[in-house]
Amino acid sequence: MEDRKKTTIVLFSGDYDKAMAAYIIANGAAAYDHEVTIFHTFWGLNALRKDEPIQAKKNFMERMFGTMMPRGADKMGLSKMHFAGFGPKMIKDIIKKHNAVPLPDLIDMAQEMDIKLVACTMTMDLLGLQKEELLDGVEYAGVAAYLADAQDGNVNLFI
Amino acid sequence: MEDRKKTTIVLFSGDYDKAMAAYIIANGAAAYDHEVTIFHTFWGLNALRKDEPIQAKKNFMERMFGTMMPRGADKMGLSKMHFAGFGPKMIKDIIKKHNAVPLPDLIDMAQEMDIKLVACTMTMDLLGLQKEELLDGVEYAGVAAYLADAQDGNVNLFI
Amino acid sequence: MEDRKKTTIVLFSGDYDKAMAAYIIANGAAAYDHEVTIFHTFWGLNALRKDEPIQAKKNFMERMFGTMMPRGADKMGLSKMHFAGFGPKMIKDIIKKHNAVPLPDLIDMAQEMDIKLVACTMTMDLLGLQKEELLDGVEYAGVAAYLADAQDGNVNLFI
Repeated sequence: MEDRKKTTIVLFSGDYDKAMAAYIIANGAAAYDHEVTIFHTFWGLNALRKDEPIQAKKNFMERMFGTMMPRGADKMGLSKMHFAGFGPKMIKDIIKKHNAVPLPDLIDMAQEMDIKLVACTMTMDLLGLQKEELLDGVEYAGVAAYLADAQDGNVNLFI
Repeated sequence: MEDRKKTTIVLFSGDYDKAMAAYIIANGAAAYDHEVTIFHTFWGLNALRKDEPIQAKKNFMERMFGTMMPRGADKMGLSKMHFAGFGPKMIKDIIKKHNAVPLPDLIDMAQEMDIKLVACTMTMDLLGLQKEELLDGVEYAGVAAYLADAQDGNVNLFI
Repeated sequence: MEDRKKTTIVLFSGDYDKAMAAYIIANGAAAYDHEVTIFHTFWGLNALRKDEPIQAKKNFMERMFGTMMPRGADKMGLSKMHFAGFGPKMIKDIIKKHNAVPLPDLIDMAQEMDIKLVACTMTMDLLGLQKEELLDGVEYAGVAAYLADAQDGNVNLFI
Protein backbone atom coordinates (compact mmCIF):
# COMPACT_ATOMS: atom_id res chain seq x y z
CA MET A 1 0.00 0.00 0.00
CA GLU A 2 2.85 2.33 0.92
CA ASP A 3 4.25 2.63 -2.55
CA ARG A 4 1.05 2.94 -4.54
CA LYS A 5 0.35 6.46 -5.74
CA LYS A 6 -2.88 8.01 -4.58
CA THR A 7 -5.46 10.13 -6.40
CA THR A 8 -8.21 11.75 -4.34
CA ILE A 9 -10.93 13.81 -6.00
CA VAL A 10 -13.61 15.91 -4.34
CA LEU A 11 -16.57 15.98 -6.70
CA PHE A 12 -18.58 19.03 -5.60
CA SER A 13 -20.13 19.83 -8.95
CA GLY A 14 -23.42 18.46 -10.20
CA ASP A 15 -22.57 19.16 -13.84
CA TYR A 16 -22.50 16.27 -16.30
CA ASP A 17 -19.35 17.46 -18.05
CA LYS A 18 -17.41 18.13 -14.85
CA ALA A 19 -18.41 14.75 -13.43
CA MET A 20 -17.24 13.18 -16.71
CA ALA A 21 -13.86 14.87 -16.31
CA ALA A 22 -13.64 13.66 -12.71
CA TYR A 23 -14.41 10.06 -13.64
CA ILE A 24 -12.12 10.06 -16.69
CA ILE A 25 -9.20 11.22 -14.52
CA ALA A 26 -10.16 8.77 -11.76
CA ASN A 27 -10.44 5.80 -14.12
CA GLY A 28 -7.17 6.77 -15.81
CA ALA A 29 -5.46 6.91 -12.43
CA ALA A 30 -6.85 3.50 -11.46
CA ALA A 31 -5.57 2.07 -14.74
CA TYR A 32 -2.21 3.59 -13.73
CA ASP A 33 -2.46 1.57 -10.52
CA HIS A 34 -3.21 4.53 -8.28
CA GLU A 35 -5.36 4.04 -5.22
CA VAL A 36 -8.31 6.27 -6.14
CA THR A 37 -11.05 7.89 -4.07
CA ILE A 38 -13.86 10.14 -5.26
CA PHE A 39 -15.49 12.03 -2.41
CA HIS A 40 -18.94 13.21 -3.54
CA THR A 41 -20.21 16.29 -1.74
CA PHE A 42 -22.99 18.83 -2.31
CA TRP A 43 -24.33 18.57 -5.89
CA GLY A 44 -21.77 15.90 -6.77
CA LEU A 45 -23.90 13.48 -4.74
CA ASN A 46 -26.40 13.45 -7.58
CA ALA A 47 -23.98 11.36 -9.65
CA LEU A 48 -24.50 8.56 -7.14
CA ARG A 49 -28.30 8.58 -7.10
CA LYS A 50 -30.16 5.58 -8.42
CA ASP A 51 -32.26 6.55 -11.40
CA GLU A 52 -35.55 5.14 -10.16
CA PRO A 53 -37.62 6.90 -7.46
CA ILE A 54 -36.95 5.39 -4.04
CA GLN A 55 -39.42 5.36 -1.16
CA ALA A 56 -37.84 7.08 1.81
CA LYS A 57 -39.24 8.93 4.78
CA LYS A 58 -38.71 12.61 4.12
CA ASN A 59 -40.05 15.90 5.32
CA PHE A 60 -41.52 18.43 2.90
CA MET A 61 -38.25 20.21 2.14
CA GLU A 62 -36.34 16.98 1.62
CA ARG A 63 -39.04 15.72 -0.74
CA MET A 64 -38.75 18.94 -2.73
CA PHE A 65 -34.98 18.63 -2.99
CA GLY A 66 -35.32 14.98 -3.88
CA THR A 67 -37.71 15.77 -6.71
CA MET A 68 -35.87 18.75 -8.11
CA MET A 69 -32.34 17.41 -8.06
CA PRO A 70 -31.36 15.13 -10.94
CA ARG A 71 -31.86 11.47 -10.16
CA GLY A 72 -28.56 9.92 -11.17
CA ALA A 73 -25.67 10.64 -13.48
CA ASP A 74 -27.63 10.35 -16.68
CA LYS A 75 -29.96 13.22 -15.75
CA MET A 76 -27.32 15.77 -14.76
CA GLY A 77 -27.04 19.05 -16.70
CA LEU A 78 -24.08 20.79 -18.29
CA SER A 79 -21.87 23.44 -16.67
CA LYS A 80 -22.50 25.64 -19.70
CA MET A 81 -26.25 25.58 -20.18
CA HIS A 82 -26.27 29.08 -21.56
CA PHE A 83 -23.52 28.07 -23.92
CA ALA A 84 -25.36 28.64 -27.17
CA GLY A 85 -28.12 26.29 -26.16
CA PHE A 86 -26.11 23.09 -26.09
CA GLY A 87 -28.12 20.78 -23.95
CA PRO A 88 -26.90 17.63 -22.27
CA LYS A 89 -28.77 15.65 -24.92
CA MET A 90 -26.59 17.08 -27.67
CA ILE A 91 -23.42 16.29 -25.74
CA LYS A 92 -24.66 12.77 -25.10
CA ASP A 93 -25.37 12.30 -28.82
CA ILE A 94 -21.86 13.46 -29.61
CA ILE A 95 -20.40 11.13 -27.00
CA LYS A 96 -22.27 8.24 -28.54
CA LYS A 97 -21.22 9.16 -32.06
CA HIS A 98 -17.56 9.30 -31.03
CA ASN A 99 -17.67 6.05 -29.09
CA ALA A 100 -16.74 7.95 -25.97
CA VAL A 101 -18.02 6.56 -22.71
CA PRO A 102 -21.12 8.19 -21.16
CA LEU A 103 -21.08 9.10 -17.48
CA PRO A 104 -23.14 6.20 -16.08
CA ASP A 105 -20.77 3.75 -17.77
CA LEU A 106 -17.74 5.66 -16.45
CA ILE A 107 -19.18 5.19 -12.95
CA ASP A 108 -19.71 1.46 -13.54
CA MET A 109 -16.11 1.20 -14.73
CA ALA A 110 -14.92 3.03 -11.64
CA GLN A 111 -16.70 0.56 -9.40
CA GLU A 112 -15.26 -2.38 -11.33
CA MET A 113 -11.75 -0.95 -10.89
CA ASP A 114 -12.31 -0.69 -7.12
CA ILE A 115 -12.28 3.06 -7.01
CA LYS A 116 -13.61 4.09 -3.62
CA LEU A 117 -16.80 6.10 -4.18
CA VAL A 118 -17.62 8.02 -1.03
CA ALA A 119 -20.77 10.01 -0.25
CA CYS A 120 -20.34 12.95 2.13
CA THR A 121 -22.66 12.24 5.06
CA MET A 122 -22.89 15.89 6.10
CA THR A 123 -24.30 17.03 2.77
CA MET A 124 -26.51 13.93 2.47
CA ASP A 125 -28.09 15.10 5.70
CA LEU A 126 -28.42 18.69 4.45
CA LEU A 127 -30.02 17.68 1.17
CA GLY A 128 -32.12 14.95 2.75
CA LEU A 129 -30.58 12.13 0.71
CA GLN A 130 -30.72 8.67 2.23
CA LYS A 131 -28.52 5.62 1.72
CA GLU A 132 -31.20 3.62 -0.07
CA GLU A 133 -31.32 6.33 -2.75
CA LEU A 134 -27.65 5.96 -3.63
CA LEU A 135 -25.87 3.30 -5.67
CA ASP A 136 -24.89 0.05 -4.01
CA GLY A 137 -21.25 -0.21 -3.00
CA VAL A 138 -20.93 3.45 -2.08
CA GLU A 139 -19.12 4.25 1.18
CA TYR A 140 -20.23 6.90 3.68
CA ALA A 141 -17.86 9.28 5.39
CA GLY A 142 -17.17 12.87 6.39
CA VAL A 143 -14.47 15.44 5.85
CA ALA A 144 -12.06 13.79 8.31
CA ALA A 145 -11.97 10.63 6.22
CA TYR A 146 -11.46 12.71 3.09
CA LEU A 147 -8.48 14.47 4.67
CA ALA A 148 -6.98 11.20 5.84
CA ASP A 149 -6.93 10.07 2.20
CA ALA A 150 -5.93 13.39 0.68
CA GLN A 151 -3.04 14.25 2.96
CA ASP A 152 -0.99 11.39 1.54
CA GLY A 153 -2.31 11.91 -1.97
CA ASN A 154 -0.21 12.56 -5.04
CA VAL A 155 -2.99 14.00 -7.16
CA ASN A 156 -5.64 15.92 -5.18
CA LEU A 157 -8.32 17.73 -7.13
CA PHE A 158 -11.49 19.67 -6.32
CA ILE A 159 -13.94 19.47 -9.22
CA MET B 1 6.95 23.19 11.48
CA GLU B 2 8.74 20.71 9.24
CA ASP B 3 6.55 17.79 10.03
CA ARG B 4 3.15 19.48 10.06
CA LYS B 5 1.03 18.69 7.02
CA LYS B 6 -0.06 21.61 4.93
CA THR B 7 -3.39 22.41 3.29
CA THR B 8 -3.53 25.37 0.90
CA ILE B 9 -6.77 26.37 -0.77
CA VAL B 10 -7.30 28.97 -3.49
CA LEU B 11 -10.82 30.29 -3.07
CA PHE B 12 -11.66 31.82 -6.46
CA SER B 13 -15.40 31.31 -6.32
CA GLY B 14 -17.88 33.78 -4.90
CA ASP B 15 -20.56 31.12 -4.40
CA TYR B 16 -21.91 30.52 -0.90
CA ASP B 17 -21.93 26.75 -1.25
CA LYS B 18 -18.41 26.52 -2.70
CA ALA B 19 -17.05 28.83 0.00
CA MET B 20 -18.76 26.60 2.59
CA ALA B 21 -17.01 23.57 1.13
CA ALA B 22 -13.67 25.43 1.20
CA TYR B 23 -14.06 26.43 4.84
CA ILE B 24 -15.34 23.02 5.96
CA ILE B 25 -12.27 21.37 4.43
CA ALA B 26 -9.98 24.07 5.84
CA ASN B 27 -11.41 23.83 9.35
CA GLY B 28 -11.28 20.05 9.21
CA ALA B 29 -7.63 20.21 8.18
CA ALA B 30 -6.82 22.64 11.01
CA ALA B 31 -8.51 20.28 13.47
CA TYR B 32 -6.24 17.61 11.98
CA ASP B 33 -3.31 19.84 12.89
CA HIS B 34 -2.53 20.88 9.34
CA GLU B 35 -1.05 24.30 8.71
CA VAL B 36 -3.85 25.83 6.63
CA THR B 37 -3.97 28.79 4.24
CA ILE B 38 -6.94 30.05 2.24
CA PHE B 39 -5.87 32.39 -0.54
CA HIS B 40 -8.90 34.46 -1.59
CA THR B 41 -8.77 35.72 -5.16
CA PHE B 42 -11.28 37.19 -7.64
CA TRP B 43 -14.88 36.63 -6.40
CA GLY B 44 -13.64 34.66 -3.40
CA LEU B 45 -12.59 38.00 -1.89
CA ASN B 46 -16.26 38.72 -1.20
CA ALA B 47 -16.21 36.15 1.61
CA LEU B 48 -13.80 38.45 3.46
CA ARG B 49 -15.80 41.67 3.13
CA LYS B 50 -17.23 43.29 6.22
CA ASP B 51 -21.01 43.37 6.04
CA GLU B 52 -21.45 47.06 6.73
CA PRO B 53 -20.72 49.72 4.07
CA ILE B 54 -17.24 51.18 4.52
CA GLN B 55 -16.20 54.66 3.46
CA ALA B 56 -13.30 54.38 1.06
CA LYS B 57 -12.03 56.59 -1.71
CA LYS B 58 -13.07 54.98 -4.96
CA ASN B 59 -13.52 55.93 -8.56
CA PHE B 60 -16.83 55.40 -10.34
CA MET B 61 -16.09 51.87 -11.52
CA GLU B 62 -14.79 50.76 -8.15
CA ARG B 63 -17.90 52.15 -6.46
CA MET B 64 -20.06 50.20 -8.88
CA PHE B 65 -18.19 46.97 -8.21
CA GLY B 66 -18.32 47.67 -4.50
CA THR B 67 -22.08 48.12 -4.58
CA MET B 68 -22.88 45.21 -6.84
CA MET B 69 -20.66 42.56 -5.31
CA PRO B 70 -22.00 40.83 -2.18
CA ARG B 71 -20.85 42.49 1.02
CA GLY B 72 -19.59 39.58 3.07
CA ALA B 73 -20.08 35.86 3.32
CA ASP B 74 -23.69 36.00 4.41
CA LYS B 75 -24.77 37.75 1.21
CA MET B 76 -23.12 35.43 -1.31
CA GLY B 77 -25.27 33.51 -3.80
CA LEU B 78 -25.36 29.84 -4.73
CA SER B 79 -23.42 28.16 -7.55
CA LYS B 80 -26.71 26.69 -8.80
CA MET B 81 -29.11 29.62 -8.86
CA HIS B 82 -31.02 28.20 -11.76
CA PHE B 83 -31.25 24.92 -9.90
CA ALA B 84 -35.01 24.78 -9.59
CA GLY B 85 -35.12 28.13 -7.90
CA PHE B 86 -33.31 27.21 -4.73
CA GLY B 87 -32.16 30.48 -3.31
CA PRO B 88 -29.45 30.98 -0.74
CA LYS B 89 -32.18 31.69 1.81
CA MET B 90 -33.58 28.20 1.45
CA ILE B 91 -30.14 26.66 1.86
CA LYS B 92 -29.52 28.80 4.92
CA ASP B 93 -32.82 27.69 6.45
CA ILE B 94 -31.85 24.09 5.87
CA ILE B 95 -28.43 24.67 7.38
CA LYS B 96 -30.05 26.15 10.46
CA LYS B 97 -32.58 23.34 10.75
CA HIS B 98 -29.81 20.73 10.58
CA ASN B 99 -27.58 22.50 13.07
CA ALA B 100 -24.93 22.83 10.39
CA VAL B 101 -22.65 25.83 10.61
CA PRO B 102 -23.40 28.81 8.34
CA LEU B 103 -20.56 30.39 6.36
CA PRO B 104 -19.90 33.47 8.54
CA ASP B 105 -19.48 31.21 11.57
CA LEU B 106 -17.20 28.88 9.60
CA ILE B 107 -15.01 31.91 8.86
CA ASP B 108 -14.96 32.92 12.54
CA MET B 109 -13.95 29.37 13.45
CA ALA B 110 -11.20 29.46 10.85
CA GLN B 111 -9.79 32.63 12.39
CA GLU B 112 -9.95 31.12 15.88
CA MET B 113 -8.03 28.08 14.65
CA ASP B 114 -5.30 30.32 13.22
CA ILE B 115 -6.00 29.49 9.63
CA LYS B 116 -4.16 32.02 7.51
CA LEU B 117 -6.75 33.99 5.52
CA VAL B 118 -5.03 35.78 2.67
CA ALA B 119 -6.49 38.35 0.29
CA CYS B 120 -4.95 38.47 -3.19
CA THR B 121 -3.65 42.01 -3.60
CA MET B 122 -3.71 41.88 -7.39
CA THR B 123 -7.43 41.18 -7.59
CA MET B 124 -8.19 43.60 -4.73
CA ASP B 125 -6.64 46.22 -6.95
CA LEU B 126 -8.62 45.08 -10.01
CA LEU B 127 -11.93 45.07 -8.18
CA GLY B 128 -11.16 48.22 -6.24
CA LEU B 129 -11.40 46.58 -2.80
CA GLN B 130 -9.49 48.24 0.00
CA LYS B 131 -8.06 46.84 3.22
CA GLU B 132 -10.53 48.67 5.45
CA GLU B 133 -13.38 46.85 3.69
CA LEU B 134 -12.06 43.41 4.61
CA LEU B 135 -12.20 41.52 7.91
CA ASP B 136 -9.61 42.26 10.57
CA GLY B 137 -6.79 39.76 10.78
CA VAL B 138 -6.67 39.09 7.05
CA GLU B 139 -3.21 38.98 5.45
CA TYR B 140 -2.32 40.53 2.09
CA ALA B 141 -0.18 38.82 -0.51
CA GLY B 142 0.24 37.92 -4.15
CA VAL B 143 0.67 34.78 -6.20
CA ALA B 144 4.33 34.32 -5.19
CA ALA B 145 3.35 33.96 -1.53
CA TYR B 146 0.63 31.50 -2.52
CA LEU B 147 3.12 29.38 -4.43
CA ALA B 148 5.60 29.45 -1.55
CA ASP B 149 2.88 27.87 0.62
CA ALA B 150 1.46 25.54 -2.00
CA GLN B 151 4.68 24.03 -3.27
CA ASP B 152 5.23 22.24 0.04
CA GLY B 153 1.55 21.51 0.51
CA ASN B 154 -0.01 18.10 0.99
CA VAL B 155 -3.53 19.10 0.03
CA ASN B 156 -3.75 21.84 -2.61
CA LEU B 157 -7.17 22.74 -3.93
CA PHE B 158 -8.62 25.36 -6.28
CA ILE B 159 -12.24 26.05 -5.40
CA MET C 1 15.07 17.72 -13.56
CA GLU C 2 14.68 15.68 -10.38
CA ASP C 3 14.81 18.60 -8.01
CA ARG C 4 12.66 21.08 -9.89
CA LYS C 5 9.21 21.54 -8.38
CA LYS C 6 6.28 20.78 -10.63
CA THR C 7 2.98 22.60 -11.15
CA THR C 8 0.32 20.87 -13.23
CA ILE C 9 -2.99 22.55 -13.94
CA VAL C 10 -6.06 21.07 -15.62
CA LEU C 11 -7.88 23.94 -17.29
CA PHE C 12 -11.43 22.65 -17.77
CA SER C 13 -13.21 25.97 -17.63
CA GLY C 14 -13.89 28.18 -20.60
CA ASP C 15 -14.35 31.30 -18.46
CA TYR C 16 -12.08 34.28 -19.06
CA ASP C 17 -11.54 34.98 -15.36
CA LYS C 18 -10.82 31.36 -14.44
CA ALA C 19 -8.39 31.01 -17.33
CA MET C 20 -6.70 34.23 -16.15
CA ALA C 21 -6.29 32.74 -12.67
CA ALA C 22 -4.86 29.55 -14.19
CA TYR C 23 -2.31 31.41 -16.30
CA ILE C 24 -1.34 33.81 -13.50
CA ILE C 25 -0.59 30.87 -11.21
CA ALA C 26 1.20 29.02 -14.02
CA ASN C 27 3.35 31.99 -14.99
CA GLY C 28 4.13 32.67 -11.34
CA ALA C 29 5.19 29.06 -10.88
CA ALA C 30 7.41 29.21 -13.99
CA ALA C 31 9.04 32.37 -12.62
CA TYR C 32 9.62 30.33 -9.45
CA ASP C 33 11.44 27.80 -11.62
CA HIS C 34 8.74 25.17 -11.47
CA GLU C 35 8.26 22.84 -14.40
CA VAL C 36 4.73 23.83 -15.46
CA THR C 37 2.07 22.10 -17.53
CA ILE C 38 -1.42 23.33 -18.37
CA PHE C 39 -3.63 20.54 -19.63
CA HIS C 40 -6.56 22.08 -21.53
CA THR C 41 -9.66 19.95 -21.61
CA PHE C 42 -13.35 20.51 -22.48
CA TRP C 43 -14.14 24.26 -22.60
CA GLY C 44 -10.59 25.15 -21.56
CA LEU C 45 -9.53 24.24 -25.10
CA ASN C 46 -11.08 27.49 -26.28
CA ALA C 47 -8.20 29.42 -24.70
CA LEU C 48 -5.90 27.77 -27.25
CA ARG C 49 -7.95 28.55 -30.36
CA LYS C 50 -6.54 30.91 -32.96
CA ASP C 51 -8.71 33.96 -33.28
CA GLU C 52 -9.18 33.82 -37.03
CA PRO C 53 -11.56 31.31 -38.68
CA ILE C 54 -9.64 28.26 -39.92
CA GLN C 55 -10.71 26.09 -42.82
CA ALA C 56 -11.06 22.54 -41.59
CA LYS C 57 -13.13 19.60 -42.72
CA LYS C 58 -15.99 19.25 -40.28
CA ASN C 59 -19.36 17.64 -40.13
CA PHE C 60 -22.47 19.68 -39.35
CA MET C 61 -22.29 19.29 -35.58
CA GLU C 62 -18.59 20.10 -35.45
CA ARG C 63 -19.18 23.22 -37.54
CA MET C 64 -21.88 24.30 -35.12
CA PHE C 65 -19.63 23.80 -32.13
CA GLY C 66 -16.81 25.56 -33.92
CA THR C 67 -18.98 28.58 -34.63
CA MET C 68 -20.62 28.81 -31.26
CA MET C 69 -17.61 28.31 -29.02
CA PRO C 70 -15.39 31.36 -28.47
CA ARG C 71 -12.53 31.57 -30.92
CA GLY C 72 -9.54 32.18 -28.68
CA ALA C 73 -8.80 33.58 -25.25
CA ASP C 74 -9.87 37.11 -26.03
CA LYS C 75 -13.44 36.06 -26.79
CA MET C 76 -14.11 33.97 -23.70
CA GLY C 77 -16.88 35.00 -21.29
CA LEU C 78 -16.90 35.47 -17.52
CA SER C 79 -17.81 32.85 -14.92
CA LYS C 80 -20.27 35.33 -13.43
CA MET C 81 -22.21 36.66 -16.40
CA HIS C 82 -25.31 37.18 -14.32
CA PHE C 83 -23.20 39.05 -11.82
CA ALA C 84 -24.93 42.41 -12.09
CA GLY C 85 -24.31 42.57 -15.80
CA PHE C 86 -20.53 42.79 -15.71
CA GLY C 87 -19.48 41.76 -19.14
CA PRO C 88 -16.03 40.61 -20.17
CA LYS C 89 -15.56 43.98 -21.84
CA MET C 90 -15.86 45.79 -18.53
CA ILE C 91 -13.36 43.47 -16.90
CA LYS C 92 -11.00 43.92 -19.83
CA ASP C 93 -11.26 47.71 -19.50
CA ILE C 94 -10.42 47.44 -15.83
CA ILE C 95 -7.48 45.16 -16.57
CA LYS C 96 -6.16 47.69 -19.06
CA LYS C 97 -6.65 50.61 -16.67
CA HIS C 98 -4.74 48.79 -13.92
CA ASN C 99 -1.91 47.71 -16.17
CA ALA C 100 -2.79 44.12 -15.45
CA VAL C 101 -2.04 41.61 -18.17
CA PRO C 102 -4.95 40.44 -20.37
CA LEU C 103 -5.40 36.73 -21.04
CA PRO C 104 -3.95 36.52 -24.58
CA ASP C 105 -0.75 38.17 -23.31
CA LEU C 106 -0.63 35.82 -20.32
CA ILE C 107 -0.73 32.93 -22.80
CA ASP C 108 2.08 34.45 -24.86
CA MET C 109 4.14 34.86 -21.70
CA ALA C 110 3.47 31.25 -20.77
CA GLN C 111 4.78 30.09 -24.13
CA GLU C 112 7.88 32.28 -23.78
CA MET C 113 8.57 30.76 -20.36
CA ASP C 114 8.36 27.25 -21.84
CA ILE C 115 5.24 26.28 -20.00
CA LYS C 116 3.94 23.11 -21.61
CA LEU C 117 0.50 23.86 -23.08
CA VAL C 118 -1.29 20.62 -23.77
CA ALA C 119 -4.58 20.10 -25.60
CA CYS C 120 -6.62 17.07 -24.53
CA THR C 121 -7.02 14.96 -27.65
CA MET C 122 -10.13 13.18 -26.39
CA THR C 123 -12.12 16.37 -25.97
CA MET C 124 -10.71 17.85 -29.20
CA ASP C 125 -12.27 14.88 -30.88
CA LEU C 126 -15.59 15.30 -29.03
CA LEU C 127 -15.85 18.99 -29.84
CA GLY C 128 -14.54 18.58 -33.37
CA LEU C 129 -11.50 20.83 -32.86
CA GLN C 130 -8.55 20.21 -35.15
CA LYS C 131 -4.85 20.91 -34.69
CA GLU C 132 -4.76 23.65 -37.31
CA GLU C 133 -7.31 25.60 -35.27
CA LEU C 134 -5.12 25.73 -32.17
CA LEU C 135 -2.08 27.89 -31.39
CA ASP C 136 1.30 26.85 -32.71
CA GLY C 137 3.53 25.15 -30.16
CA VAL C 138 0.69 23.37 -28.38
CA GLU C 139 1.26 19.70 -27.51
CA TYR C 140 -1.35 16.97 -27.87
CA ALA C 141 -1.96 14.28 -25.29
CA GLY C 142 -4.52 12.36 -23.29
CA VAL C 143 -5.28 11.69 -19.66
CA ALA C 144 -2.41 9.22 -19.24
CA ALA C 145 0.14 11.92 -20.09
CA TYR C 146 -1.59 14.29 -17.68
CA LEU C 147 -1.36 11.74 -14.88
CA ALA C 148 2.30 11.06 -15.60
CA ASP C 149 2.97 14.76 -15.00
CA ALA C 150 0.58 15.21 -12.11
CA GLN C 151 1.58 12.23 -10.01
CA ASP C 152 4.97 13.79 -9.28
CA GLY C 153 3.55 17.29 -9.03
CA ASN C 154 3.85 19.60 -6.06
CA VAL C 155 0.97 21.88 -7.02
CA ASN C 156 -1.91 20.14 -8.83
CA LEU C 157 -5.00 22.18 -9.55
CA PHE C 158 -8.25 21.65 -11.44
CA ILE C 159 -9.63 24.96 -12.66
